[in-house]
Amino acid sequence: MNSYRIAVVGATGAVGQEILRTLERRNFPVSHLKPLASSRSLGKTVDFNGKKLPIEELRASAFADVDYALFSAGATRSREFAEACAKAGAVMIDNSSAFRMRADVPLVVPEINAADLKQHKGIIAVPNCSAIIMGVPLWPLHQAAHIERIIVSTYQSASGAGAQAMAELEAQARAYASGQPLKKEIFPHQIAFNVFSHNTAIAENGYNEEENKVIEETRKIFHEPALPIVATCIRVPVLRAHSESIVIETRRELSPEEAREILSKAPGVKLVDNREKNHFPMPLEASGQFDVLVGRIRRDLSHPRGLALFVSGDQLLKGAAWNAVQILENLVGKS
Amino acid sequence: MNSYRIAVVGATGAVGQEILRTLERRNFPVSHLKPLASSRSLGKTVDFNGKKLPIEELRASAFADVDYALFSAGATRSREFAEACAKAGAVMIDNSSAFRMRADVPLVVPEINAADLKQHKGIIAVPNCSAIIMGVPLWPLHQAAHIERIIVSTYQSASGAGAQAMAELEAQARAYASGQPLKKEIFPHQIAFNVFSHNTAIAENGYNEEENKVIEETRKIFHEPALPIVATCIRVPVLRAHSESIVIETRRELSPEEAREILSKAPGVKLVDNREKNHFPMPLEASGQFDVLVGRIRRDLSHPRGLALFVSGDQLLKGAAWNAVQILENLVGKS
Repeated sequence: MNSYRIAVVGATGAVGQEILRTLERRNFPVSHLKPLASSRSLGKTVDFNGKKLPIEELRASAFADVDYALFSAGATRSREFAEACAKAGAVMIDNSSAFRMRADVPLVVPEINAADLKQHKGIIAVPNCSAIIMGVPLWPLHQAAHIERIIVSTYQSASGAGAQAMAELEAQARAYASGQPLKKEIFPHQIAFNVFSHNTAIAENGYNEEENKVIEETRKIFHEPALPIVATCIRVPVLRAHSESIVIETRRELSPEEAREILSKAPGVKLVDNREKNHFPMPLEASGQFDVLVGRIRRDLSHPRGLALFVSGDQLLKGAAWNAVQILENLVGKS
Repeated sequence: MNSYRIAVVGATGAVGQEILRTLERRNFPVSHLKPLASSRSLGKTVDFNGKKLPIEELRASAFADVDYALFSAGATRSREFAEACAKAGAVMIDNSSAFRMRADVPLVVPEINAADLKQHKGIIAVPNCSAIIMGVPLWPLHQAAHIERIIVSTYQSASGAGAQAMAELEAQARAYASGQPLKKEIFPHQIAFNVFSHNTAIAENGYNEEENKVIEETRKIFHEPALPIVATCIRVPVLRAHSESIVIETRRELSPEEAREILSKAPGVKLVDNREKNHFPMPLEASGQFDVLVGRIRRDLSHPRGLALFVSGDQLLKGAAWNAVQILENLVGKS
């Protein structure tokens, strides 16, 4: 079996760490693992397959002996090093938003549009986490009944803002417990015991960046450039999985029973829909799982062809690291 | 000025306590305050206007010298003592769900349908908290442009399940902070660092009790018995204010600018809609306020006559105690 030289850019970050764990968990054939990060992280090590690997500095020359570079270090770093990656012949799998909407960059959720990988020209983008977690359960419903409109409200965890944001939520909970003042450094508002509109800038159209990503990226992934979507993205005091309340309108009427049947067989989805036990998708249970949990499947009583559902998916895994490793597996023909 | 004999049933509970604080804050003319609770609470006192008043036992004879009885002790207690209240000539203002959908019981949010109070026959019901918090900002928009459909997803605080539920959230946060196991007694699932579908039974139609209340009660309050509504009710780890992500479709197109103008003058509403500062309604800021905060007002990009907004309101105040005291003020002609 072939074995591959893999660079992980942002290896000390929340997503970078999950990429290392996911490569291990999948037993991905790695001949050389190169953990890259900014010079601030020099001297640190990361664990991989039982070894401690020293962080190497992220610079143009670092990609010389790399087959695949998985980037999770923010859009600025991705833009800065894309050319170096290309020149070195390394394929870039990018978790940032830098290239997602570029026409020559496939934006891929393997359960949905793995076929788009064939068109890649050296860069493949991993979509926004909320778009992935929504797309996985909606795609099989779209294939069955053609979705004509999506209305989504999110319950997004701290992990989407990185390891420091997760630490801030925990620190605020500890401060609250001991009667100390709650400090905020990462988020603009207190996150413990609070919810707030997603902390990205509001665009001209009144939507924040996160909402516009969910809308535009879903359209690109689904190859439905005009699909009507309204999104409201909200942060909640949860550590690492995103949940979403979704209402869809379909061209053909889709009964809850049929939707449940479709989703029970869909790839990347786990049905959690026990009405008797009041057991439905929860971020606590989605954490650590590759699959997106889906439940609360019921008729939208306000529309003749409407369906409502609730989903939870691990933002760090299916929303980032696992989706990136899935792309890698597809590229090498392992999946 | 007249002065009134007021009984507060469930005076030691989360809502009962807020009713006492609200009567004080409004300087409501009380000649005699009678705090009632189950025999378990005998021996306890409650604070009111600088005095410590002993809890009296809730029994049929307790209403003999009462003008208005404000009930917040659950539907079973309300059903049990409604007749005693009526016989004693005391008007019942009921926070429970016991009588809300009865045709001869007005279900009142004073900003919306204070006129319905005139029809009362001794019982007036305070609506479900999520229905109130949604209704206050939607009513003036309905009057302006006729709402034809409501799609709502809630972010509901622990307070809706009472003082013990709030204590459970705090206890779980403390246990987490000190590395202890998290105990759950009130909620079926861990509430700290988690979200879950509302912990009420799922009805035949696939909706939980809370969602069906939001749907049916909003229709009754608005006098729109067929208004199409789809609701998804979710608990979040917040102490005492509910938030809601709302999308409406109106008969006449309503621009965000016009909606903002209408809401800036609407009773019971406070506009919090600062895009530059990313400052929108948050439960932390809604807590302790009588008004419902509303913001994120923007076009629904997926519908020609759609509008999206986000609201937060104090579940214990406008969602319960303040709405009950407002009804009381209306009845005595003080408001």
